[in-house]
Amino acid sequence: MPLHSPLLDRLREIFGPAACAADEASRLAYAYDNSRLDALPDAVVFPTGHAQVEALVRACREHRAPLVARGRGSNTTGATVPVAGGVVASFERMNRILRIDPDNRLAVVEPGVLNGDLQKALIAHGFFWPPDPSSAPWCSIGGNLACNAAGPRAVKYGTPRENTLGLRAVAGTGEGFRCGTWTSKGATGYDLTRLLIGSEGTLAVVTEATLKLTPRPSAIRTLRATYRDVDAAARAVARIMAQPATPCALEFIDGVALRLAHDYAPDAGVPLAGALLMIEVDGEPDALPAAAEAVARAARGDGLEELRIARDAVETQALWSARKALSPAQRTIAPDKINEDVVVPVSRLPELVAGIKRLAAQHDVLIVSFGHAGNGNLHVNLLPRDAAERERAHACLAEVFALVVELDGTLSGEHGIGIAKRPFMPLALQPSTLGLMRAVKQAFDPDGILNPGKLLP
Amino acid sequence: MPLHSPLLDRLREIFGPAACAADEASRLAYAYDNSRLDALPDAVVFPTGHAQVEALVRACREHRAPLVARGRGSNTTGATVPVAGGVVASFERMNRILRIDPDNRLAVVEPGVLNGDLQKALIAHGFFWPPDPSSAPWCSIGGNLACNAAGPRAVKYGTPRENTLGLRAVAGTGEGFRCGTWTSKGATGYDLTRLLIGSEGTLAVVTEATLKLTPRPSAIRTLRATYRDVDAAARAVARIMAQPATPCALEFIDGVALRLAHDYAPDAGVPLAGALLMIEVDGEPDALPAAAEAVARAARGDGLEELRIARDAVETQALWSARKALSPAQRTIAPDKINEDVVVPVSRLPELVAGIKRLAAQHDVLIVSFGHAGNGNLHVNLLPRDAAERERAHACLAEVFALVVELDGTLSGEHGIGIAKRPFMPLALQPSTLGLMRAVKQAFDPDGILNPGKLLP
Ligand SMILES: Cc1cc2nc3c(=O)[nH]c(=O)nc-3n(C[C@H](O)[C@H](O)[C@H](O)COP(=O)(O)OP(=O)(O)OC[C@H]3O[C@@H](n4cnc5c(N)ncnc54)[C@H](O)[C@@H]3O)c2cc1C
Ligand SMILES: Cc1cc2nc3c(=O)[nH]c(=O)nc-3n(C[C@H](O)[C@H](O)[C@H](O)COP(=O)(O)OP(=O)(O)OC[C@H]3O[C@@H](n4cnc5c(N)ncnc54)[C@H](O)[C@@H]3O)c2cc1C
Repeated sequence: MPLHSPLLDRLREIFGPAACAADEASRLAYAYDNSRLDALPDAVVFPTGHAQVEALVRACREHRAPLVARGRGSNTTGATVPVAGGVVASFERMNRILRIDPDNRLAVVEPGVLNGDLQKALIAHGFFWPPDPSSAPWCSIGGNLACNAAGPRAVKYGTPRENTLGLRAVAGTGEGFRCGTWTSKGATGYDLTRLLIGSEGTLAVVTEATLKLTPRPSAIRTLRATYRDVDAAARAVARIMAQPATPCALEFIDGVALRLAHDYAPDAGVPLAGALLMIEVDGEPDALPAAAEAVARAARGDGLEELRIARDAVETQALWSARKALSPAQRTIAPDKINEDVVVPVSRLPELVAGIKRLAAQHDVLIVSFGHAGNGNLHVNLLPRDAAERERAHACLAEVFALVVELDGTLSGEHGIGIAKRPFMPLALQPSTLGLMRAVKQAFDPDGILNPGKLLP
Repeated sequence: MPLHSPLLDRLREIFGPAACAADEASRLAYAYDNSRLDALPDAVVFPTGHAQVEALVRACREHRAPLVARGRGSNTTGATVPVAGGVVASFERMNRILRIDPDNRLAVVEPGVLNGDLQKALIAHGFFWPPDPSSAPWCSIGGNLACNAAGPRAVKYGTPRENTLGLRAVAGTGEGFRCGTWTSKGATGYDLTRLLIGSEGTLAVVTEATLKLTPRPSAIRTLRATYRDVDAAARAVARIMAQPATPCALEFIDGVALRLAHDYAPDAGVPLAGALLMIEVDGEPDALPAAAEAVARAARGDGLEELRIARDAVETQALWSARKALSPAQRTIAPDKINEDVVVPVSRLPELVAGIKRLAAQHDVLIVSFGHAGNGNLHVNLLPRDAAERERAHACLAEVFALVVELDGTLSGEHGIGIAKRPFMPLALQPSTLGLMRAVKQAFDPDGILNPGKLLP
């Protein structure tokens, strides 16, 4: 869809020449994201304030032009690919931390602030913001909120939904609004804040976020447990989650992934086992030994092969070696890996992993599974090595999703839907639920200009 | 609005004679709630299953009859008063705990389950559901979700919004749907679960809830601190909230309330002071002393008069005596007390309490303040003793809300809006935010049959 020239003129008026680009190179640079899908936008703008974003959305609405909000494009689902052309609004220049307020355990930030930069700024105040995607150094708070992105800490501290107090945003109507509170509690009307979180820029463009902070625990202890098989590890996960000392990380790596990491980095000390759990416990120094012991007790049981507790930072690094070697190992084998992040109830993990093993054999595709076991959130990575395997992998994927839904799970734990998982939405959600989501979309964005072609099938 | 007879026939078909009543006595019994407002419904029904509720909503929609979902009518805002007549659906018979699943830290319940009954059933499994309104023994989970009701534990464990995984419900369209997940994490489409929480039965009728459980800490320690004045206590609250050992209760009582409780129960050992904090810390026995000490350290500071730590259950009871004497003491003075639950950022508590003192003097009304200080959530109770004072109290109330909004706070922390606070919504929310809420209402309930006249002005 070519950009109407009157819209481009209007964008130049709103943003000035230095913050509005329609040249080939700029359009190319904002055509793709970490999904490796791409589509050219007609223009790219760089907002720096709320009023500008209101003017932008109004202009796009008037001209019926698609508008894609973009943080740093690190999402894995094509959520920022402008599939219908139009305008990409990159928030990389709207990146100020507006306020850090320890007394009220909150921070107010612009959407372009990088997660990692916020965490650094919070250290001096003794706080952190729990969502910790491993992309933290180069992904934005706006992107984190829009995807409900998270990481290992979610098992104890929650996702953006549990850690956001309020938002300022502009709906697809062009109207700016505030929702939520500056307080840790509120019962004043509908919860639009959580509705926007996870909506992938399809309902409103976020211009400011009030984030709930958590005090930094002053100490951490790392444990690594290896198990005879996946089943034994999954049972240990359920035991760990059923006692009060909730770990701040409970990560799982299956035997296939361990073998891969081991072969990729033979000297890194990656253990070979049926499955491995990385467990971290945090807290105050006086309380930590007891908490670590409680978790260790739960980790022990039938099928445990070895339990190690790191005594210092160096040993902690060594224990994490398998997890670290995993990403590059996979990339070496399969540059086109398909990276899913399905989630099932913790107790169904053994069935999920067994099912995946069966599907991998059946479709003759290499699959490794690892991830946030405490949330039942597994990264199921299909590693096709050539075109034929790629085709088989895609066939297999549909069956993985069907299996997940059968196990009371859902399509995504933290990466979201974007374009990549959109076709599978009817598998996970009833027609009536999808119908209500469409009605909500219509309420916020009556002309369908915000990130069209994403999330809702 | 009289009930069309064809609708009553249809209701009898759906519910049978034993679960559908239109006689005077039944209608009277479901006309009022804890707000002491009342209005007669045309009929009362007692659903016991999801399909029945779908049929009910469809019938009401077809006949354009209002439908008010009701738990136990313990809300304080008139949220269940059928101001437009129509049908009250009381969920008191749909009260089964369907599943307690410790491995997955969840429970599946029907909406009529009493909060207290659920908590009792969870004890054997070593878990609890954090929302703990003091009405727990006689209020329903459905009501808790619809109001986002909470209690002292919210400061550490959150409100229903942070403790609900998924819902089954029937929208105002008559369509049944599921939303949310059976997992502790999810990024599959819009968060309709949280949208329904706090919506006071105006968007959909909840027929099943999947609740997130938390392991029961095995020990608790209670502290009581008295302060020279409210300001000193409020500063202590901010200090306590800025260190990592988050208490599981951080309750505030102002000097006026202490005096009242003291005079009402002279032998109960209620201390007289400028203000009092009740603090509870929970955790595992090994960790508790350190946590209690950290909190005690933060509680100390300029203006502290006395800090007591309970050594056993008897002493704990004694420390809570002031809080316990408070409700009956107020009732004795002012049976028509106006019970608000405003919330401000914790650091603004001193300004709030100072402002309330000023307004009380200005309007010559007795006001006591106490509540969940860790969330900045104060119960501001106006205690008019006669008709003239009642009139002054209502004038004063409007200024209390204006003050709260000026301090970046909001109208309600946990009681919701109902009828009582509906006129004040435009004070707390921008027209654009209210407009979006209305559009969401329209999306779920196009004919406006669900709990009309509540929440949205
Ligand atoms: C190496 C690597 C590791 C990763 N690890 C994790 C992980 O551990 N956990 C995890 O959850 N994810 C992970 N991700 C995925 C990704 O980093 C996250 O989804 C992140 O939240 C995206 O942030 P972003 O700033 O790059 O957003 P983008 O990719 O630019 O955008 C993501 C979505 O947010 C929307 N959006 C952005 N800004 C706004 C705004 N202001 N208003 C409205 N909508 C907006 C976009 O429209 C899009 O729908 C990883 C990615 C990489 C490349
Ligand atoms: C003595 C006393 C102490 C209290 N203490 C507290 C406290 O500490 N904290 C606190 O937050 N509240 C407190 N409350 C208020 C009240 O108990 C809570 O709001 C409670 O959540 C209401 O539950 P209920 O079952 O009585 O719901 P109801 O009063 O019957 O209904 C409340 C709302 O929920 C809706 N609703 C009920 N069931 C459904 C359903 N199935 N689907 C959709 N909507 C539904 C109703 O339409 C209504 O809008 C107290 C009340 C009393 C009387």
